[in-house]
Amino acid sequence: MHIDLNADMGEAFGDWRMGNDGALLDIVTSANVACGAHAGDWDVMARTMTQARDRGVGIGAHPGFPDLQGFGRRRMSMPGESLANLVIWQFGAARGMAAALGTQVRHFKLHGAMANMASEDIEMARAAYSAALRVDPDVILLVLAGTAQEAAARSLDARWAGEIFADRGYNDDATLVTRGQPGAMVHDPNDAAARMVAFVKSAAIIANSGRQIPAACDSICLHGDGPDAVAIARAVRAGLETEGITLAPMQGHRPS
Amino acid sequence: MHIDLNADMGEAFGDWRMGNDGALLDIVTSANVACGAHAGDWDVMARTMTQARDRGVGIGAHPGFPDLQGFGRRRMSMPGESLANLVIWQFGAARGMAAALGTQVRHFKLHGAMANMASEDIEMARAAYSAALRVDPDVILLVLAGTAQEAAARSLDARWAGEIFADRGYNDDATLVTRGQPGAMVHDPNDAAARMVAFVKSAAIIANSGRQIPAACDSICLHGDGPDAVAIARAVRAGLETEGITLAPMQGHRPS
Amino acid sequence: MHIDLNADMGEAFGDWRMGNDGALLDIVTSANVACGAHAGDWDVMARTMTQARDRGVGIGAHPGFPDLQGFGRRRMSMPGESLANLVIWQFGAARGMAAALGTQVRHFKLHGAMANMASEDIEMARAAYSAALRVDPDVILLVLAGTAQEAAARSLDARWAGEIFADRGYNDDATLVTRGQPGAMVHDPNDAAARMVAFVKSAAIIANSGRQIPAACDSICLHGDGPDAVAIARAVRAGLETEGITLAPMQGHRPS
Amino acid sequence: MHIDLNADMGEAFGDWRMGNDGALLDIVTSANVACGAHAGDWDVMARTMTQARDRGVGIGAHPGFPDLQGFGRRRMSMPGESLANLVIWQFGAARGMAAALGTQVRHFKLHGAMANMASEDIEMARAAYSAALRVDPDVILLVLAGTAQEAAARSLDARWAGEIFADRGYNDDATLVTRGQPGAMVHDPNDAAARMVAFVKSAAIIANSGRQIPAACDSICLHGDGPDAVAIARAVRAGLETEGITLAPMQGHRPS
Repeated sequence: MHIDLNADMGEAFGDWRMGNDGALLDIVTSANVACGAHAGDWDVMARTMTQARDRGVGIGAHPGFPDLQGFGRRRMSMPGESLANLVIWQFGAARGMAAALGTQVRHFKLHGAMANMASEDIEMARAAYSAALRVDPDVILLVLAGTAQEAAARSLDARWAGEIFADRGYNDDATLVTRGQPGAMVHDPNDAAARMVAFVKSAAIIANSGRQIPAACDSICLHGDGPDAVAIARAVRAGLETEGITLAPMQGHRPS
Repeated sequence: MHIDLNADMGEAFGDWRMGNDGALLDIVTSANVACGAHAGDWDVMARTMTQARDRGVGIGAHPGFPDLQGFGRRRMSMPGESLANLVIWQFGAARGMAAALGTQVRHFKLHGAMANMASEDIEMARAAYSAALRVDPDVILLVLAGTAQEAAARSLDARWAGEIFADRGYNDDATLVTRGQPGAMVHDPNDAAARMVAFVKSAAIIANSGRQIPAACDSICLHGDGPDAVAIARAVRAGLETEGITLAPMQGHRPS
Repeated sequence: MHIDLNADMGEAFGDWRMGNDGALLDIVTSANVACGAHAGDWDVMARTMTQARDRGVGIGAHPGFPDLQGFGRRRMSMPGESLANLVIWQFGAARGMAAALGTQVRHFKLHGAMANMASEDIEMARAAYSAALRVDPDVILLVLAGTAQEAAARSLDARWAGEIFADRGYNDDATLVTRGQPGAMVHDPNDAAARMVAFVKSAAIIANSGRQIPAACDSICLHGDGPDAVAIARAVRAGLETEGITLAPMQGHRPS
Repeated sequence: MHIDLNADMGEAFGDWRMGNDGALLDIVTSANVACGAHAGDWDVMARTMTQARDRGVGIGAHPGFPDLQGFGRRRMSMPGESLANLVIWQFGAARGMAAALGTQVRHFKLHGAMANMASEDIEMARAAYSAALRVDPDVILLVLAGTAQEAAARSLDARWAGEIFADRGYNDDATLVTRGQPGAMVHDPNDAAARMVAFVKSAAIIANSGRQIPAACDSICLHGDGPDAVAIARAVRAGLETEGITLAPMQGHRPS
């Protein structure tokens, strides 16, 4: 039994810092590195990938919409072909940097509004993922388990891994409880750790109601910002290790 | 006897057009494709590389300073490591796009102020070129013949090709006559064609004084803007063909 | 009887050109000057406003979404307060430039997706317009006649002027015929001129069906791009002059 | 005897934070607000100006080079006319925002590389300052005391105020000791406070050697970043108050 821990990183820009990459890099096994459209720049990317490489953390490309001021969180409508080109461009930049640093980009995860839209719209997800696969057919697509992202990855016969959240509550249909609703956020590190152990052991998302929904619990998404984030991340890792669950960069699986 | 014809392309941005890529793509054998920092975007890059691929035109990455408003023509000072990261990022984006389109980036040419600075400063040229070589050790560096760019490429034991200009006059030391000075620009297409035939046949830059300076005349730089540009480009191609000189994408050479 | 002719201008960016400002400035009486978010930069704005000032053409601020690559044509969702700040910022830049040039910004017109969204959503239109009025309570809001833009301007008791299109067909409810549908575009300059004369004389939008919808026909929007655009613009101006209709920068009116 | 305390503010961008505006706004009497080119955006500017207005802190425009990734610290060469346009555009945006918030921009201070270049080059300083004066002839130019900035302000017969640094050492010619050299930085809050009291009382810059150079000590520049910055800022304010020196937003003076 093994699991990957992932976190978004390299989201600084120029002199501006973001998150807590230093702490997270000692906890996670995979890093989703921003590619310059919603955050990150060439220097930030080089620094982040170097640190990840040196600690054996798997590197992923984390493309987003071209909207620095909105941090890629504003929805933007663009034709599927433009979305594909945008994703290729960012993935290519990440792959170039990884190659220059003697390492590689193993996985691919959409950011922000692009990810939200793709979790609802299989055609959009397919446009983005098929673009990534044209660059590297072996890249692991890190998808939100149970969403249109997963359906898209399966339909493309791609290598993929399912992602669950350590700090979010789930509804009975495996969707996240909307922020602001009761049970949306998990604040207690021990609670988060216990939940993740249960998810992984049961290979299921466990809704706030207690209902188990079988799911590909391949990678747990952790955060570096917010007052509890790093404490939750540490507790989740510790909890999993205590249970003898192996932590390792995601391998992904093919649907068939 | 063979020669490459290159031109900068893909310098549109969003809805803005630039140059005359359509006409030039039928003339040149290599295209220097902008990488999004000084010009170009993901859609423009995809469109340009697709057209180049379909016509058998060799594709190069053409990185510049991150200054859209200044078109990469303003000098910017940055540490060598940042310059390296910036170049890797752009080269990577170009390589990703080429891979997605089933083609490849064969060469690498610096743009604008970055090129001008690198033609004067071997350390800067080495920083940029060694960065590109970390991404792809086989990429052909297209250098301004006789400048610090060439010296840098030689010192790195890289594959390189020397570039000459169809529409510019040369001084006795192989530098370009400064714009605005008499003899700086060649306006007549027939004159340009005759000059290029002479350069290629003698394997030398022929200064305005008549002096011959042996040089690697591997690729002729053509332009798509300006009133005479496309006419010059066509005349140069026709003149070379008439002389039986083979036109083909650059192959580059190793210094040793 | 008098009418204003307006056109979007100053939509170049850096070295990239757009439209045909030179020709249009001899035709229009008001210029909508881009403010740097979707197009335009400080140099373009200075050049455009100088030309407008020198020809007695009224100057307007033409703010859009912060999306150069998409030319402000992609819808972006942002809170009303951010939209207000964005509009203030652009309007302020335009007013600063006008002041430095010894002239002033007389009107205010939303661009692209921002305009489209505001023509459908009165709250969004009110957010943008009330922001502009906080900067200058006397600015003339140039609104799409008969849309939520007009309703918003009326509700704010603002000075406003209604805009009609020379090159577009109208439905019976005064909305534009969707591009791509039959009758969406007016291509013939004489036809466009005759239509505009009829609109102005009847103080009504005349739908393609012939139905007259009373409307504030204060300003006719002309374009500079497209094969017929300048010919249409010239014909519309000539047609109005032949009919003895006075061409002058918009004055706007208060609802009460 | 009175003095102004100024600090750079509003240098966040989108989701990225910078400095410690909250703490500094309780200490300073003038805020230099970034204008979106090197840092700051419409929302940040609105938030910062609102806070300054509410605390009675004087508001200044703080324009820089258009280089977010470099934070305006990289030198960029541009013609004087472009520099003027760039400065007008940013000053205008700031004035528009202030007007919308029912307040005003009282002063004008150059940022980063633009400031450094203008402190060495009187023509560049004059280009920037005369541009600002075309927008508002009564704006107070906050200049680095004893540099080409001051000379330019004097030559333009402008209203100006001289700036000194709380945390930097001075050479005998009133220039700053280069960073990295001994005596370049003042780290001790009490030391900084004592120095500033001495500067103000003697109306002179006191070099590290003890030499006094008469200077317009009108405003003290404080910082919000760095481990000692806020402590220094508080100590300087307390030290001046203890000496009975009145703290108030700068008034500026005319040279004659």
